[in-house]
Amino acid sequence: MREVCIVGIGQTDVGEHWKRSLRDLAVDAILATLKDAQPERVDALYVGNMLSGELAAQQHLGALVADWAGLPGVEAVKVEAADASGAAALRLGYLAVASGVQDFVLVCGIEKTTDADAEVLTAAWSTGMDAEYEAFQGLSLPGMAGLLMRRYMHEFGIKREGFAPFPVQAHANGANNPHAMFRSAISPEVYAKAGMVADPVNMFDAAPMCDGAATLLLCPSERAGQFGTRPVHILASTVATDRVAVHSRRDPLFLQAAYLSAQKAYAQAGAGPQEMQLFELHDAFSIFAVLSLEACGFAERGKATHFAQEGGIAPKGRIPISTMGGLKARGHPIGASGVYQIVDLVAQLRGQAGANQIDCRLGMAQSLGGSGATAITHILGA
Amino acid sequence: MREVCIVGIGQTDVGEHWKRSLRDLAVDAILATLKDAQPERVDALYVGNMLSGELAAQQHLGALVADWAGLPGVEAVKVEAADASGAAALRLGYLAVASGVQDFVLVCGIEKTTDADAEVLTAAWSTGMDAEYEAFQGLSLPGMAGLLMRRYMHEFGIKREGFAPFPVQAHANGANNPHAMFRSAISPEVYAKAGMVADPVNMFDAAPMCDGAATLLLCPSERAGQFGTRPVHILASTVATDRVAVHSRRDPLFLQAAYLSAQKAYAQAGAGPQEMQLFELHDAFSIFAVLSLEACGFAERGKATHFAQEGGIAPKGRIPISTMGGLKARGHPIGASGVYQIVDLVAQLRGQAGANQIDCRLGMAQSLGGSGATAITHILGA
Repeated sequence: MREVCIVGIGQTDVGEHWKRSLRDLAVDAILATLKDAQPERVDALYVGNMLSGELAAQQHLGALVADWAGLPGVEAVKVEAADASGAAALRLGYLAVASGVQDFVLVCGIEKTTDADAEVLTAAWSTGMDAEYEAFQGLSLPGMAGLLMRRYMHEFGIKREGFAPFPVQAHANGANNPHAMFRSAISPEVYAKAGMVADPVNMFDAAPMCDGAATLLLCPSERAGQFGTRPVHILASTVATDRVAVHSRRDPLFLQAAYLSAQKAYAQAGAGPQEMQLFELHDAFSIFAVLSLEACGFAERGKATHFAQEGGIAPKGRIPISTMGGLKARGHPIGASGVYQIVDLVAQLRGQAGANQIDCRLGMAQSLGGSGATAITHILGA
Repeated sequence: MREVCIVGIGQTDVGEHWKRSLRDLAVDAILATLKDAQPERVDALYVGNMLSGELAAQQHLGALVADWAGLPGVEAVKVEAADASGAAALRLGYLAVASGVQDFVLVCGIEKTTDADAEVLTAAWSTGMDAEYEAFQGLSLPGMAGLLMRRYMHEFGIKREGFAPFPVQAHANGANNPHAMFRSAISPEVYAKAGMVADPVNMFDAAPMCDGAATLLLCPSERAGQFGTRPVHILASTVATDRVAVHSRRDPLFLQAAYLSAQKAYAQAGAGPQEMQLFELHDAFSIFAVLSLEACGFAERGKATHFAQEGGIAPKGRIPISTMGGLKARGHPIGASGVYQIVDLVAQLRGQAGANQIDCRLGMAQSLGGSGATAITHILGA
């Protein structure tokens, strides 16, 4: 098995791109990556996307993006794992390079959601839950986040204000990311007054719907020296799953897939949560950030909000999270987010994170699909 | 890179499964495969599916199928490449085992189309074409097949009757396959009188819409001896793409992706069309069978209908095709077909093909996505 490096990154701004189509966004991000790394050729393209079929009547994105990016003939397919689709595309790219089958592989996460009405989009997004036993009963993903957050507050005696550090930190970080959708810091007071989305989840507990594309170039580590960029090593790549319907899980407040995926990643990298210097986690909702920190061993059960309030997630805290704004402030273009997380992590490891630069050589990213039924973890090292 | 074997196969009957849901069909096929091979464990599950989001409001099939099949925690994602989604899932499984990352991998192709109205289904299926430049202009996949067939007849001076051997042979083969949707032979006279779907494509030139799931178990070749089944070796696994919109191709009657994918596969296997003893091709429409034979080197340009009329595709002909009925008579459950092709090919190589048994040790399968923008080829050896 060959070792794999990330040698190129690219992204579009995250936001509402009403003048660029799905394929345009993908091409923009790919061209940025090709400019960053300047590979001699591209052997394969793996696309992560969740909703182009439902929202743009366009499937077959592997071939379509290869076509429009001017990559005639290359191997290309699409991977889907709900919100974790982008991370799943990286997983596939990792396998293709590690196996020795492909040398220069593009990974592209792409989603365009803002052409759709909010109701259409919410319904489409809920296809990541169990359709027959959750979505058809009227449950949406924000609704599920509301139930989980309410249960967490009850179980561990946490007030709603306890969740404030997550959106406050994300917005503070996003303010310095030129690609972020939201670039304004917010105060705990603003958080406290925000309108409800699905009580107790308020507007600042939920990531925005948006458009965006992000891309990576992978190659075998022994070829990484030929690029002008500083190579970032993929030290672990893991996928784990859980029951899709939350009511079928033994403990709805424990993200079993996140736990399994993280444990496998720690074993593969030979480094645990103690060694991690940065964690790009799946803060699609504040409650998911809380549950991720606990499942991955950064905070004890029921203690993640306290950990955050004590500064644990700040840039100079024990484990900085969402350092470029996260899903909350950078934005959550659903099937693209898993790749945006990696782009942000690579920028940090390269020392290109600007005002938000963290001193780090080892970091991890974890992307969750649906209500956490899929968890995909990557550990990267400079 | 490790060599990879297929040690287990399973399938549901192909047909209209109104009493079984999407997840039920997947589980049925997985249980059949686990019974066939009886692995000590399953490390990962890769699902090929195209339309569950559009037709069943259910995405996230990797986790969902793992959940319902009783495979808690395993790595699981979905792959999509339009009609070639099942073959793409096998490609991913191949990479996972070849890389050394996973040992025992399930590959599942699944589609359920018959719950939808014909118009909804035709529109959903056309998302495998270029939405903006083809489907939104009113072109469907049967319509595209009609245009290509008409052009082929004009270009090479072929009459409609020239295509008869393809459906006639497929139905003759399907008659002996207990899992096939259509089990009645048809005569050239019946073909000649059939109603038009998209002139000159008639009812027998087009594969039926249907439901089904098919599954494979892969493992490294060095572990294949521990199973009670006769191992079948994956000698080549390749993916290639072409322009998605047919009007953008240099020659609409030449399947460039099929050609590239086949050439790469021949190079990897060290065997060309001369050595192949069986070809499970993508006969979603008669014209695609014709173009596939020509692109893959079994017939000269413009000569595939003559080749078929001279018996070249018959069970005892130069290159038997669709030996268990193919997409035409076995049925074309869209995202599952790529796996059904492999199940049929493995059955032949194991000597378990019953009345349709061919004497063969080397065969290939090729699955096409949309109008051929994706082509995925596998060469298998007993």
